[in-house]
Amino acid sequence: MKNISILGSTGSIGIQTLDVIRENKDKFNVTALAVKSNINMLLEQIQEFRPKVVVVYEENEAIKLKNMLQNTQIEVLHGMDGLKYISSMEEVDIVLTALVGMIGLIPTIEAIKSRKTIALANKETLVTGGKLVMSESKKYNSKIIPVDSEHSAIFQCLNGEDIKNVENIILTASGGPFRGKKKNELINVTKSEALKHPNWNMGSKITIDSSTLMNKGLEIIEAKWLFDINVENIKVLVHPQSIIHSMVEFIDGSVIAQLGNPDMKLPIQYALGYPCRISNNFERLNLAKVATLTFEEPDMDTFPCLRLAYEAIHLDGTYPTVLNAANEVLVSEFLRESIGFYDIPKYIEVAMEKHEFIKEPTLEEILQIDEWTRDFVTKSIK
Amino acid sequence: MKNISILGSTGSIGIQTLDVIRENKDKFNVTALAVKSNINMLLEQIQEFRPKVVVVYEENEAIKLKNMLQNTQIEVLHGMDGLKYISSMEEVDIVLTALVGMIGLIPTIEAIKSRKTIALANKETLVTGGKLVMSESKKYNSKIIPVDSEHSAIFQCLNGEDIKNVENIILTASGGPFRGKKKNELINVTKSEALKHPNWNMGSKITIDSSTLMNKGLEIIEAKWLFDINVENIKVLVHPQSIIHSMVEFIDGSVIAQLGNPDMKLPIQYALGYPCRISNNFERLNLAKVATLTFEEPDMDTFPCLRLAYEAIHLDGTYPTVLNAANEVLVSEFLRESIGFYDIPKYIEVAMEKHEFIKEPTLEEILQIDEWTRDFVTKSIK
Repeated sequence: MKNISILGSTGSIGIQTLDVIRENKDKFNVTALAVKSNINMLLEQIQEFRPKVVVVYEENEAIKLKNMLQNTQIEVLHGMDGLKYISSMEEVDIVLTALVGMIGLIPTIEAIKSRKTIALANKETLVTGGKLVMSESKKYNSKIIPVDSEHSAIFQCLNGEDIKNVENIILTASGGPFRGKKKNELINVTKSEALKHPNWNMGSKITIDSSTLMNKGLEIIEAKWLFDINVENIKVLVHPQSIIHSMVEFIDGSVIAQLGNPDMKLPIQYALGYPCRISNNFERLNLAKVATLTFEEPDMDTFPCLRLAYEAIHLDGTYPTVLNAANEVLVSEFLRESIGFYDIPKYIEVAMEKHEFIKEPTLEEILQIDEWTRDFVTKSIK
Repeated sequence: MKNISILGSTGSIGIQTLDVIRENKDKFNVTALAVKSNINMLLEQIQEFRPKVVVVYEENEAIKLKNMLQNTQIEVLHGMDGLKYISSMEEVDIVLTALVGMIGLIPTIEAIKSRKTIALANKETLVTGGKLVMSESKKYNSKIIPVDSEHSAIFQCLNGEDIKNVENIILTASGGPFRGKKKNELINVTKSEALKHPNWNMGSKITIDSSTLMNKGLEIIEAKWLFDINVENIKVLVHPQSIIHSMVEFIDGSVIAQLGNPDMKLPIQYALGYPCRISNNFERLNLAKVATLTFEEPDMDTFPCLRLAYEAIHLDGTYPTVLNAANEVLVSEFLRESIGFYDIPKYIEVAMEKHEFIKEPTLEEILQIDEWTRDFVTKSIK
């Protein structure tokens, strides 16, 4: 039995993680759940999964929940201290980090230091603090298993292989809802158009990131750290059907790919079960029914966020932190309909240019740069 | 440095194996070469690769070659004894068996007993004597690495995975030159039409087998033995572009596939180098250029050889031996233009029905049934 802390249990990944656990109650036990503020849904999850501890990041909501749970044994915590606590509890085996954005960095490091296995669904953690996180993970011998479908695919393709034999990692990208469109057609794109992802059912932040291809950009950075590979050897291939979830090309020209229906429960289950595969009744991939898979090069002119991500990780240091923080602010502004689609890359680029570069930032400096970027971008768009 | 015996060095696989060795002279050395009768090409290979021993299966040709080589240190042998000798020489590490047809069985068993690594390109060996070969290979701890592109793909997909977690093996098939055609369009098909394989450059026997889909049938049987999996869990998927070389579906619904350009040098090099991958300059797969991969179910009505192969391995015992022997005779008759395209499955089915079934045949009995089948079929078509 593996004990699991879920950071972000009411988000898309969190809910699907609980679906997986519900089907595998003989294998997994929920020790702790954390949410930002959605205590109504959390309450339902508590009733079903009976965690020992829950964390509500926002203190006011935490107090409300505490009152509701006063006749139970369930401990209610709040804030970053709460997240850190459930990332390091002794009985926890796996910390699944599915918080949205940069907030996942500190609890992830806490979990690593407590030698937990990390099921990583929060890509911003590696984007913004990749070097730090990976060196801590080596130091504490804490395994990081990606939950992202692309990185899970690569992780699976590398099973039994030597990373030294990898020539290229090929991240597939659906291309998002605007694939094939040109810049002039996208200038006035609306929030609701951008939220229509063709294949995956995901949260709104990641869906917008898919529409700008920033999602793929963040994945490049994540892959660089997870698999310790040069960014020059990470390619993006647009594959609209999202059936091939990613590929690894080896030095002999052989390519290993992982395929499946677009269903996040598969990589979630793989990460929780690793190194074992768990039998399930998910719908099986039927390629004869799918009939056709297509591939094309990504269009970096129409989707400058992808180019900016390549630049950021190439320049390294604090650049990815700025890219990520600026993108978080700008996506949330776009979702509030206060800026346009191309304002996202525009202000990211400005923030990258203007920030004070640090080559080897500490955690403190990363957090400072992150904060500076959020401030700077918020002011810039006004 | 690995010392290699190549059985069948002047055939398509043999020539490509020497191409691979030529590029990797620091890793591989040719200890012995064997051919059926083509001493002219063998002579060129001898001059380039300087083997210690060569075998010419046909005695008359062997004598001619012996005379030509009388001033050299190179030993010339003939017949089955010659093949057995070079399969068991002490200094040999890998025996690559690329003989065409059933003739490969005895030398393969000899190599297994001498604890060599087998690079297996002769699929008839496993088709006809699979149970025996695999049990010997277990007993003598001799590793069998498939050279066939489909089985090499599966072998690569299973790296680091537990065979117990396999739900299905999915063998891809190009569909051959007659894909999409119906029976009435194929009745009068000629040898030269059947020899036009769309993707792979192979020998004539295997190219005809591709046109009848018997090649895929033989591969199902081979896969059953190589990977110790029920035939019900071996599926065939038509994939005309031959880019995905085969796939493994696991119990969690995840599918791992191996992809590459259709080039036999890749699986040959993989088998010789295993467990190491060797860097090379083979043309890399460019999926954006390929652009489209398609998939469809195989048509068992139009291609009854595939159905017969499923039946033969399902019934097991001597059925696959009969299937294979009958097919060898009939393909060679078809290549002589003495029978029609649909006479191939027709007489295979008759031979399967008429033969005296043995559930657990010995090597002797396999050889007898093989001979009986050849006789029977030869007489039947007259």
